[in-house]
Amino acid sequence: MVFTRKPLHEDVPELVAAARGDLKASLVITNGKLVNVVSGEIVPGISVGVYGSRIAYVGKDVSHMIGPDTTVIDAAGKYIAPGLLDGHCHIESTQLTVTEFARAVLPLGTTGGFFDPHEIANVCGLLGIRYMLEEARQTPLAAYLQAPSCVPSTGPHFETTGASLGPAEVAETYTWGPDVIALGEVMNFPGVVYGDDKMIGEIQETLKAGRYVDGHFTWGATDWRLPVYAAAGVTGDHECVTAEDVIERVRLGMYAKMRRGSAWHDVAQTIKAHTESSIDTRRMMLVTDDRSSESLRDEGHMDFVVRHAISQGVKPVTAFQMATINTAERFGLQRDIGAVVPGNYADIILLDGNLADVHVVTTIAAGLVVAENGKMAVELPSYTYPDEVLHSVHLEPSIMAEQLDIPAPIESGEVKARVIDVIENHVETNERIVNVPVQAGKVKLDPAGGICKIAVFERHHQTGNRSVGLVSNVRFNKPAAIAMTVSHDSHNVVVIGSSDKLMAQAANSVISQQGGVAVVTEEGVTEFPLRIAGLMSTEPFETVAEQSASISRALASAGCDLNYAFMTLSLLALVVIPTLRISDKGLVRISPAGIELVPLFAE
Amino acid sequence: MVFTRKPLHEDVPELVAAARGDLKASLVITNGKLVNVVSGEIVPGISVGVYGSRIAYVGKDVSHMIGPDTTVIDAAGKYIAPGLLDGHCHIESTQLTVTEFARAVLPLGTTGGFFDPHEIANVCGLLGIRYMLEEARQTPLAAYLQAPSCVPSTGPHFETTGASLGPAEVAETYTWGPDVIALGEVMNFPGVVYGDDKMIGEIQETLKAGRYVDGHFTWGATDWRLPVYAAAGVTGDHECVTAEDVIERVRLGMYAKMRRGSAWHDVAQTIKAHTESSIDTRRMMLVTDDRSSESLRDEGHMDFVVRHAISQGVKPVTAFQMATINTAERFGLQRDIGAVVPGNYADIILLDGNLADVHVVTTIAAGLVVAENGKMAVELPSYTYPDEVLHSVHLEPSIMAEQLDIPAPIESGEVKARVIDVIENHVETNERIVNVPVQAGKVKLDPAGGICKIAVFERHHQTGNRSVGLVSNVRFNKPAAIAMTVSHDSHNVVVIGSSDKLMAQAANSVISQQGGVAVVTEEGVTEFPLRIAGLMSTEPFETVAEQSASISRALASAGCDLNYAFMTLSLLALVVIPTLRISDKGLVRISPAGIELVPLFAE
Repeated sequence: MVFTRKPLHEDVPELVAAARGDLKASLVITNGKLVNVVSGEIVPGISVGVYGSRIAYVGKDVSHMIGPDTTVIDAAGKYIAPGLLDGHCHIESTQLTVTEFARAVLPLGTTGGFFDPHEIANVCGLLGIRYMLEEARQTPLAAYLQAPSCVPSTGPHFETTGASLGPAEVAETYTWGPDVIALGEVMNFPGVVYGDDKMIGEIQETLKAGRYVDGHFTWGATDWRLPVYAAAGVTGDHECVTAEDVIERVRLGMYAKMRRGSAWHDVAQTIKAHTESSIDTRRMMLVTDDRSSESLRDEGHMDFVVRHAISQGVKPVTAFQMATINTAERFGLQRDIGAVVPGNYADIILLDGNLADVHVVTTIAAGLVVAENGKMAVELPSYTYPDEVLHSVHLEPSIMAEQLDIPAPIESGEVKARVIDVIENHVETNERIVNVPVQAGKVKLDPAGGICKIAVFERHHQTGNRSVGLVSNVRFNKPAAIAMTVSHDSHNVVVIGSSDKLMAQAANSVISQQGGVAVVTEEGVTEFPLRIAGLMSTEPFETVAEQSASISRALASAGCDLNYAFMTLSLLALVVIPTLRISDKGLVRISPAGIELVPLFAE
Repeated sequence: MVFTRKPLHEDVPELVAAARGDLKASLVITNGKLVNVVSGEIVPGISVGVYGSRIAYVGKDVSHMIGPDTTVIDAAGKYIAPGLLDGHCHIESTQLTVTEFARAVLPLGTTGGFFDPHEIANVCGLLGIRYMLEEARQTPLAAYLQAPSCVPSTGPHFETTGASLGPAEVAETYTWGPDVIALGEVMNFPGVVYGDDKMIGEIQETLKAGRYVDGHFTWGATDWRLPVYAAAGVTGDHECVTAEDVIERVRLGMYAKMRRGSAWHDVAQTIKAHTESSIDTRRMMLVTDDRSSESLRDEGHMDFVVRHAISQGVKPVTAFQMATINTAERFGLQRDIGAVVPGNYADIILLDGNLADVHVVTTIAAGLVVAENGKMAVELPSYTYPDEVLHSVHLEPSIMAEQLDIPAPIESGEVKARVIDVIENHVETNERIVNVPVQAGKVKLDPAGGICKIAVFERHHQTGNRSVGLVSNVRFNKPAAIAMTVSHDSHNVVVIGSSDKLMAQAANSVISQQGGVAVVTEEGVTEFPLRIAGLMSTEPFETVAEQSASISRALASAGCDLNYAFMTLSLLALVVIPTLRISDKGLVRISPAGIELVPLFAE
């Protein structure tokens, strides 16, 4: 099945002919209750006529459009609403391909999204973005990509990434088509405020190309530098955790994106900007940012987020606006998506029961019924990533336990060392200074001491870079190790464990399978292959969700019962978030004073 | 003084540097009550920092931006609001140049607008549009032009215009710059609905260029063809006269423009879509369409319209949204105009008293204080139109009374004739069939009979085309005539009078002065020269308003006391509005069945 979305100007003659009845509709939906997100009303007795990929008619009567080949859907008793849009999302976080992501979310009513392929960009650079774009284009989704702004998150002094993008590369992505719509979250917000050339350059190229700049500002809502960030042309931001964060951004003209990811539960607080402070909602959006495949399976996608917003006291039609028209307007796409109006793409969902339940029973994308009753109704074309993406782990599976040795500055005794302390449910870490035992000139951890080793093996350029450090609160209570090629943002091979031998085995497992996650205990190996750039699986959604769950179970069986354990551990190499991290270059400490490499041993 | 508006991407580096205080602001406004049209609130204690033409900072404190050369305006006790935008306006209706229009409206708080140079296009074609654009660019206004869609309003069979535009010409205007932003009101809405190639072609070129299509649909709100019109990509329409007109347009995704022109008083009814039906207001806009120079002087411009909307029960901040952010969003310009937020152009007004009074005391445009206390504070650069525009009346001033003879089909007696019947306060006319007296083979009107002659002389191409017809309810009660080169849409020379001799004199007067209006009675001549394309004056605003008023007084002194008499009479040659009209080709009758040339004598 081929899903085509042509620009409106090409469709106009046939669309008008279909609307007046001279051409017959491909699909009509009759007599539903329209969730009109433009007027902010529920309008009963509405029918919709579709011609090809677009809506030709919305009104009381579409009988003049029905011909012998017209598919007729009776929507009596049902709601007709625009398909849901995710205004900020990293598909890589689901470990799914774009195609499998589409299979997962279309039955849930998501028909479009704004995807920042920041992870694959760190591994494969422009080519990775290009492949994801090509794959996205052949799905039924109204998929728009954002050019990743911070690749790498820091620079070659602090970490080795697979690729590096700057203003020229960002500008190039905009030449690929109008579906590369924005600059992805500009995480280096201090760089913007203080005039970093690369950040300012990327923003300039984005604005010059008529695209939009999305932000990521984590200083406080009333920090005097938020307006400085806004002055750079940043007009959207999802790093809102309080109502005040939302209000201050909207007051400055930004779209405030309220997030409900797997682990980021921000809507309950941020929505109070509307439910308690009643600011104009037109620039408030609902987004997911990062959701795991298990969350998609067990909770849902944008349907879950909209339902959650309604449960917080938002009027249903207003909550729908926050996931449809507001999102479309934010990216200047209101003439293509986000509302059931003539001319727009026929991205339409039917819902039964109470609207507040957000119970999607039919999903229409680009004019075709793609899902019914929670199941896909069509096959999606397959997409094969090229060999270079499927072989992105440039290491031999010959890592030995000895490579995990930590030589100490003394022959035996105790030495003070810096330890990365994991904080459950938080993205930050602490830096702990701990006395660790040394034997025969090497650090020798007490299996009951609660400290594990963490190692990073550079996997992009065969530099041989390797670093080994220490981490606490992983909670392994027996010999165990986890290795993974998902390790934000540089996605080198990270291994964490309580046994050097099992760590080496885990690392060799993910190297052998060219990417993925492996948990190794003395009972055996649990593998979650992620062959695409070491980030995404080639398997179907259902398999991925089950494999992801199996990793969680394996970790828990070894004592690691952290919430979102895999996601939490995969962030320990993210060298832009305080306080102590590790990269292939060694330990990195991040504080308000800046970022620095620090030695493992503290004096 | 030079007013520069560069694209945002060029300004970003300096804007950010100014926002953080490394460059000093050119202007700051301190401690006002911000009318925040994004969040829909009035926020007290707000200061604004401006660098060059744009806003660099909005927040509680701008002291870090103030340097020795910074202009500081204390806004204590005042409101700070975005400059008002007119979302649909024909500058030619004021008879002012763009420069003089700017001088008239800037002190009233209008800082930008969307101008459809439809009238000059009918006379001078693309060149006329281009000259108005060039003039607009040197004013302080954020001026955007719309490419006129219906030049001519019909075709060469029904009228002779100075120029004709089609899809290729429309497409060319979009290459002139991003300030040609839209296709102007597509008045040939039946053509759109029924697939007229020219109309569809112009719309396609517009959408292809990323521009917006404005509509003009006068069939009823619930006519089944309104959704067909919307399917063509028409996303705005100012022909709303009822609340239902507004609601139905918004439901179809259109921006509904609510009009308060000199003669079109639509806001009182249309605003009920909000005040009584409470639909979402984001796609409701306030516009003027056509206002005379006298209306600008005596009532105001957008300040008057916003004040009027508030008087109808709209919350002030909502009314401001309808003339600022909603308008900017309609044209995709929310990152440049329509709100006081960092990054936008510094188009800002200060108001004192109650916000509902809309009492503008200071106007800042592109970062400069251009008006204070109702007066311009700066000189605007002058603009001289080229000779071809100043000599657009291609006729000799040698019209003789005999050319106004109407030969009758009988030698004497009475004959049935079609008479254009003026309806006060309405743009439509009636067709009356009247017995008129004939003497010596010519129609010989009874001076007390209430019927005048109306003649059209083609003035563009020296075709010699001339037609003479009959009109009633002009109300002349003594020998009098009015001639004018403002005669929508083809702007030939139209003369109306109760005396052939005075008619010839009036016609020769406007020909001699190369355009304008002349009222002639036996007491003398009152002239209102309109040298620019026969449509606009070269004189200052104050002079034009007085000359316009003198025409009204002269007409009234001869008995013609119609409301907006000159505007009403200038529409009698508009051959697309029912029922009976006259062009240089003869009498034209417009009905739901179509448009046709009809003979003066009935049977």
